[in-house]
Amino acid sequence: MTLPHRVSSVACAWLLLASAGVQAQVQTAYPDAAASDPVRMGWMVGSPPPADRVLRFDDGSYFRFPALRWSVAHFRQLMPTVSVSRGLGAPVALPRALRRDIDALQFLPLRSDQPMSWEQSLAANYTDGIVVLHRGRVVYERYFGALQPQGQHAAMSVTKSFVGTLAAMLVAEGRLDPARRVADYVPELAASAFGSATVRQVMDMTTGIRFSEDYADPKAEVWAHAAAGNPLPKPADYNGPRSYYEFLQTVQPLGTHGAAFGYRTANTDALGWVLARVSGQSVAELLSDRIWSRLGTEQDAYMTVDATGTPFAGGGLNLGLRDMARFGEMLRNGGVFQGRRILPAAAVADIRRGGNPADFAQAGYRQLPGWSYRNMWWVTHNAHGAFAARGVHGQTLYIDPQAEMVIARFASHPVAGNAANDATSLPAYHALALHLMRSGKAP
Amino acid sequence: MTLPHRVSSVACAWLLLASAGVQAQVQTAYPDAAASDPVRMGWMVGSPPPADRVLRFDDGSYFRFPALRWSVAHFRQLMPTVSVSRGLGAPVALPRALRRDIDALQFLPLRSDQPMSWEQSLAANYTDGIVVLHRGRVVYERYFGALQPQGQHAAMSVTKSFVGTLAAMLVAEGRLDPARRVADYVPELAASAFGSATVRQVMDMTTGIRFSEDYADPKAEVWAHAAAGNPLPKPADYNGPRSYYEFLQTVQPLGTHGAAFGYRTANTDALGWVLARVSGQSVAELLSDRIWSRLGTEQDAYMTVDATGTPFAGGGLNLGLRDMARFGEMLRNGGVFQGRRILPAAAVADIRRGGNPADFAQAGYRQLPGWSYRNMWWVTHNAHGAFAARGVHGQTLYIDPQAEMVIARFASHPVAGNAANDATSLPAYHALALHLMRSGKAP
Repeated sequence: MTLPHRVSSVACAWLLLASAGVQAQVQTAYPDAAASDPVRMGWMVGSPPPADRVLRFDDGSYFRFPALRWSVAHFRQLMPTVSVSRGLGAPVALPRALRRDIDALQFLPLRSDQPMSWEQSLAANYTDGIVVLHRGRVVYERYFGALQPQGQHAAMSVTKSFVGTLAAMLVAEGRLDPARRVADYVPELAASAFGSATVRQVMDMTTGIRFSEDYADPKAEVWAHAAAGNPLPKPADYNGPRSYYEFLQTVQPLGTHGAAFGYRTANTDALGWVLARVSGQSVAELLSDRIWSRLGTEQDAYMTVDATGTPFAGGGLNLGLRDMARFGEMLRNGGVFQGRRILPAAAVADIRRGGNPADFAQAGYRQLPGWSYRNMWWVTHNAHGAFAARGVHGQTLYIDPQAEMVIARFASHPVAGNAANDATSLPAYHALALHLMRSGKAP
Repeated sequence: MTLPHRVSSVACAWLLLASAGVQAQVQTAYPDAAASDPVRMGWMVGSPPPADRVLRFDDGSYFRFPALRWSVAHFRQLMPTVSVSRGLGAPVALPRALRRDIDALQFLPLRSDQPMSWEQSLAANYTDGIVVLHRGRVVYERYFGALQPQGQHAAMSVTKSFVGTLAAMLVAEGRLDPARRVADYVPELAASAFGSATVRQVMDMTTGIRFSEDYADPKAEVWAHAAAGNPLPKPADYNGPRSYYEFLQTVQPLGTHGAAFGYRTANTDALGWVLARVSGQSVAELLSDRIWSRLGTEQDAYMTVDATGTPFAGGGLNLGLRDMARFGEMLRNGGVFQGRRILPAAAVADIRRGGNPADFAQAGYRQLPGWSYRNMWWVTHNAHGAFAARGVHGQTLYIDPQAEMVIARFASHPVAGNAANDATSLPAYHALALHLMRSGKAP
């Protein structure tokens, strides 16, 4: 694999950061949420913006902290994208029953004996927006920085859970056989490491593939993946793969399929290719057709694309916060949203059931004990049966069936890996779940 | 002015083609509408698309006929864009009263003694979509090729009329003084040809500026304009202006301000800069805030942007067909849409009143006798008081107040200049107006 051109590498830093597997250390040198507020910073504001407030994709300026706090809410202004259409019908409003008691809720962050309030956690996590549904009603909703209710925010690797959900749907419908090999659906992948993996192994990221997401290593495959998917013109001296699909064909085996969970973004792109072949639609079209146009969403979503128009299945989705909450509410209700069945019950049950915690344990996520990964979802296996979609910098969709609670959160934490924000988010979510169970009134 | 790098020039062919002033000859060597159908051609379809069906912005492939028939409905997949948000409310449906008698309507194309039917004209014009409103109700609606009701199509220079409408609005509100000089609002333009022009002269394109849109001439200013606005990274040897605003500061005088109408796209970009300074919002934000979020639109619109995030005021708008019709219906009703005032009556009256036909005549549009140009609108001064927004390749919003008719049309004619399609569109519109006046029943 040729090391991609430097400019491409820098430009595509966000692609590699899309890996929630990054086990970053929390750093304390960053300005806090108020000091790094993207509106206060004035990114891309003015006619023209001041030179030091212009952000670009090609020079990587857009994804340096604190600039990334603006960029995560404005990806479409930086690169080509494809719409995930909601259709033309009227949105179906989420009922609202806002509560004032949530901000003061106290919880203990992981590894801490200092209680923190829910409201304090939002700043600690660099939250851009958060919506909490309880029994389908909006009980809490806040926006910060560059995000508005009528804006779209990068979901980063939360994208993977949407793609995994589409796959689980096609499996439940009998259109996709998880026991078949990937090469049966995509012959072009036969000679790659994916060719001999089953669709199920790709869906659960238990493939044995050589795909390092260690971006300190210039030879890590994630750099080649990012350069291949960069939608900008390739440098003249670039000789690598020129699209996600071309990259996937170069992925080499490492280890054994089915032996362990290993979080590797390339799996989702391979799954996206399988879905495209099975459905005859791109992931963006399939998502629009089967889910997005049926949920009463308020806004079109969109996905970033590579130079051949392929949506970035591993991390390219951008969407409205309330719409992400709608998607979660549908899953909480077993695939039904406001009386309409969107997904087969079996697909949702398979997501919620989760995977094998023993497989998961081998990946070494110390803050996620007993969890598993199934259909591109993170499953807690806690007493509430909670499961989550997770993306770098703090993106999450957290569903707690026992508490009848859905939390959708967008954030722009300076550290990519969610290990940096789990300490002040996961215990807050669980504390809120318990609080709602204690105090919530049945509708 | 340095001649821009070749790649940038090719990539930006569409920007120069955005000039409806191109007086192209009709050529007959092109495949017809059926043979060039973009769905039939299979552009960007497949996983991946075949190599000869991949379209790119940077190599100019996307805007060669017949590929442009796909591209005009998919600009966002080729370059960065900014949303023109509709907000989050429910769309306000246009009442429907579809008529079956329109397809058979006969008319005489210009310079022809062979009658043509309305339906035949749609193929002759490479129509991608057309909606006709009569007394506010949809009486006709058709889609072809790559356009769907839930898609957005390039408006090309129809964009200018939206920008001119925003300017007329701010004038009517007393926030923008058309008698003041451009340099009073944008001091950076003081040394350019725009500096000494009045805002009114810019709004009506009667400025005396050196801005050739003759793209056969590699030294034509339109090339530098296109290269400056190209959102992709500039070539290493590029020394020209790097944004629309930087380009505008280089525009030199030619002739006398106020002496004649001359269709030059740079005027609209200069007007966009004035609007940004007066409102504190980009043209996209201003359009969303003041119009798009108040019309009950079905879809967000979007605009292409340059490398500093400035929307392309001269031709960058993309929108839904029905939404364009809504905008026209609001103007037909003097600034009111379904009972809600959107624009000051004075602004709409000033658009409809038109400009000076003597100024217009000097520009030599033989097929548009007696017309004028005012507030970036084309005014027919015919017996019906019809006025229109026009963009290359056949984009139009045609409003006939006397016939209580609005026609919104997107097209992808192989020839850029509207002279190539006016012969089979303008007489068809007028024939339909007369037909609706004869046969229409009052609601």
